[in-house]
Amino acid sequence: MKTMPLDQTIIDRRAAIIAAMRAIVGEERLITSDTAMRPYESDALTAYRQLPLMVVLPDSVEEVAKILVYAQKENVKVVPRGAGTSLSGGALPLADGILMSMARFNEIQKIDYDNLCVTAGPGVTNLSITEAVQDRGFYYAPDPSSRIACTIGGNVAENSGGMHCLKYGLTTNNILGLEMVLLTGDVITLGSDDFTEGGLDLMGLVTGSEGMLGVVTSVTVRILPAPPEAITMLVGFPSVEAAGETVAGIMRRGLIPGAMEMMDRLAVKATEAFVASGYPLDAEAVLIIELDGTREEIKSATALVKKVASGFGASSIVVSTSEEERLAMWQGRMSAFPAVGRLAPDYYCMDGTIPRGKLPEVLTAMSQMSRDFGLEVANVFHAGDGNLHPLILYDANEPGQLERAETFGEEILKLCVRVGGVLTGEHGVGIEKRDLMSEMFTETDLNVQQRVKCAFDPDGLLNPGKVFPTLHRCAELGRVHIHSADGARFPNLPRY
Amino acid sequence: MKTMPLDQTIIDRRAAIIAAMRAIVGEERLITSDTAMRPYESDALTAYRQLPLMVVLPDSVEEVAKILVYAQKENVKVVPRGAGTSLSGGALPLADGILMSMARFNEIQKIDYDNLCVTAGPGVTNLSITEAVQDRGFYYAPDPSSRIACTIGGNVAENSGGMHCLKYGLTTNNILGLEMVLLTGDVITLGSDDFTEGGLDLMGLVTGSEGMLGVVTSVTVRILPAPPEAITMLVGFPSVEAAGETVAGIMRRGLIPGAMEMMDRLAVKATEAFVASGYPLDAEAVLIIELDGTREEIKSATALVKKVASGFGASSIVVSTSEEERLAMWQGRMSAFPAVGRLAPDYYCMDGTIPRGKLPEVLTAMSQMSRDFGLEVANVFHAGDGNLHPLILYDANEPGQLERAETFGEEILKLCVRVGGVLTGEHGVGIEKRDLMSEMFTETDLNVQQRVKCAFDPDGLLNPGKVFPTLHRCAELGRVHIHSADGARFPNLPRY
Repeated sequence: MKTMPLDQTIIDRRAAIIAAMRAIVGEERLITSDTAMRPYESDALTAYRQLPLMVVLPDSVEEVAKILVYAQKENVKVVPRGAGTSLSGGALPLADGILMSMARFNEIQKIDYDNLCVTAGPGVTNLSITEAVQDRGFYYAPDPSSRIACTIGGNVAENSGGMHCLKYGLTTNNILGLEMVLLTGDVITLGSDDFTEGGLDLMGLVTGSEGMLGVVTSVTVRILPAPPEAITMLVGFPSVEAAGETVAGIMRRGLIPGAMEMMDRLAVKATEAFVASGYPLDAEAVLIIELDGTREEIKSATALVKKVASGFGASSIVVSTSEEERLAMWQGRMSAFPAVGRLAPDYYCMDGTIPRGKLPEVLTAMSQMSRDFGLEVANVFHAGDGNLHPLILYDANEPGQLERAETFGEEILKLCVRVGGVLTGEHGVGIEKRDLMSEMFTETDLNVQQRVKCAFDPDGLLNPGKVFPTLHRCAELGRVHIHSADGARFPNLPRY
Repeated sequence: MKTMPLDQTIIDRRAAIIAAMRAIVGEERLITSDTAMRPYESDALTAYRQLPLMVVLPDSVEEVAKILVYAQKENVKVVPRGAGTSLSGGALPLADGILMSMARFNEIQKIDYDNLCVTAGPGVTNLSITEAVQDRGFYYAPDPSSRIACTIGGNVAENSGGMHCLKYGLTTNNILGLEMVLLTGDVITLGSDDFTEGGLDLMGLVTGSEGMLGVVTSVTVRILPAPPEAITMLVGFPSVEAAGETVAGIMRRGLIPGAMEMMDRLAVKATEAFVASGYPLDAEAVLIIELDGTREEIKSATALVKKVASGFGASSIVVSTSEEERLAMWQGRMSAFPAVGRLAPDYYCMDGTIPRGKLPEVLTAMSQMSRDFGLEVANVFHAGDGNLHPLILYDANEPGQLERAETFGEEILKLCVRVGGVLTGEHGVGIEKRDLMSEMFTETDLNVQQRVKCAFDPDGLLNPGKVFPTLHRCAELGRVHIHSADGARFPNLPRY
């Protein structure tokens, strides 16, 4: 369990801070009672819980600016929050920090079909962007499993992925512009409706920065024309290795499926018991492959997948023959997490990425580790881009099991890095993987990253305790004094 | 004509600096005579010429590190250079700075079909990456017109584009990993063979940073399966407005062509006189549209383009019926720049991007400006992504014409920004657009960018005088002291 730093002087000044926030957002958008703050005490990494100092819900860029200016002046920490669906604890509150919910920024501001983009508030859910344009035949590609609930602001913070990121990229590949408020209260716009803008690409930097650089108040995303058709294939294998070889084999032959997911025996068993989707129960691993495009394209792709899968000894191959069948096949994958959740009181969802070619090796190693740790692990993941989501089963009420599950998870991530992979595929680092960053980055890498962080947040007030294993004071790295240069937008805000 | 700062004390210390460089790279990879340095005096923005203090050609990461460590210790400026094809003066030498040519880093280090990526030295040309994988049916998508000569390192520095970036994205959308040497001599690796890595996305930041943050010594790019088929359409229009409406109309209907280029009457006339490609001479504007994918996909796309183009009054529509015809059609577009070059002693190639919907308005405004300035302008550009390349014709020998051409160009870029566009599409800012940055960015935007720059280069030694209109001393913005944290790789290098 990672601890977070605590500044008692802030706790002691809580009343004054509450008064200041009330003056900015008013009574009804300020939450201070433990009961009312309870829903905010954790994100989807529920093993970590912490009530914030208070919760504020600004509903304008100016309010966000005023809150941040106050925070910097009074040295109060701020944790921005979207829908709180983060699986890495990125939105975990701080006992001595203001939790800033962006839920009120929930409007789609612009739909521009000429430039194929949509501008939305950070509080707009991922799915509602697609819903807003699908009648015209468009959609927003990145689709986290939590897309019904997760917000586009949270997607930007965590650089979220999804099943279709294999072919269409992560959030960072689908963002065109951002509006962000700095701790100085200044508002900067990054990117544009166009591809590029010149100067340093701060938009790329901010995407995936986990709320550490500023507070995003508007997001412009690229929308894509929906593929004309799509089919799904359900392929069973006698071993996870064979399934892994097939994944690499398909890509090696130049086919990039719309999605290529893998589930192992345990995950399939749990899912079939939960929603009968016709997954082969005798298989050690199942690939759920989506092929999209024109009928002709899909036809040749289907043939290629059959050829490769058979070559690696696939035990069963089923192709959807109708949209109903296609959706039914996905129903299983979509229900896999809750289904696995029924196998044990708790499970811990990991997120690491490895080079595709290493799948067989890593999957084999994981089953050995599962035996060593005496904890079952179910594998449900984005095989196409090598993004693993091992679900470690445990019982939090059994003393020591949570700790063992966490150690098991760490060992898995260290293994990912050892084989040339990375700590995260799409869930971010947050607090969960914070202490593992040095497994992947050298001290130099981390210092450069932190110097960049200091250029935005010299006092370490934005979402501190996340991402970086050791929060150097910026002074050690060379302090950057942020002095406001442009007061035009908010002339009445105090300046430092 | 923008001036560059000059530090006479460096000129005075030239002999000592030469000796130091000789000690690092040896005699034969050090160029110091004016005659031998002549080829390096400018990049493709030939209106600007300046001999460097000296040219060094390191051929190992360790040599690059030693040169940078020396530069920081002795406060000597360094300008990294690829093939020198930059059109914005990004590689323009400094009289008081070392020009570091990366030409020796010209090897492809790794081709990985399992993970669909290629790792190459920054001196490898853009085209040779595609050539290295095309026999297996893959290619590297971004294709600057200079792809035969321009290097992948230069592409990263300028975030280069090309005709196919409409559908496949710019360099930043196709880079998976970078190795970069800092001024401290430390080597950092950014990104990986996978999609993401956690922590701050410095890879996105470095791409397009025009040599201001460090020196890239290795680039890993994503390769894509080549589309099964492609055809080209040549569509003539009675007005540039109609052509512009067609471009937006096609995208609005959800079709993203592999490429969608526009040439106006003057460009077509010059091109047909140079290489007869059968472009319609009676048209005011011609669209060259490439449709790729499966036969079926191409068929429906062709029908859609015909429908939209006819709707906007297309005067002629020709579809290639063979690969020979397709290539012949492109021959015209490919030869457009040299062809226009025959119309006048000199031409100035601009690069700005506007929202697609604004094409008609901007094209009309430009022809008016052409009359006002008394300078002809030929338009050859990537219409699909709104990336304009007006070619302003002038005669440098006519007193005042260069200045008038530059002013005309500035007015065009200001117009781009006014209609919601940006200063550059794919050529970078360099020295050419440096003084226009404030047209697009607020003082705050620029200060944040420069604070980030200071996190890498506190003394402003890497390619200074480019991109930023006013080079604040980092002290003003809050100086960042770079202290080396990881000497493991080069234990013998001096540390500060």
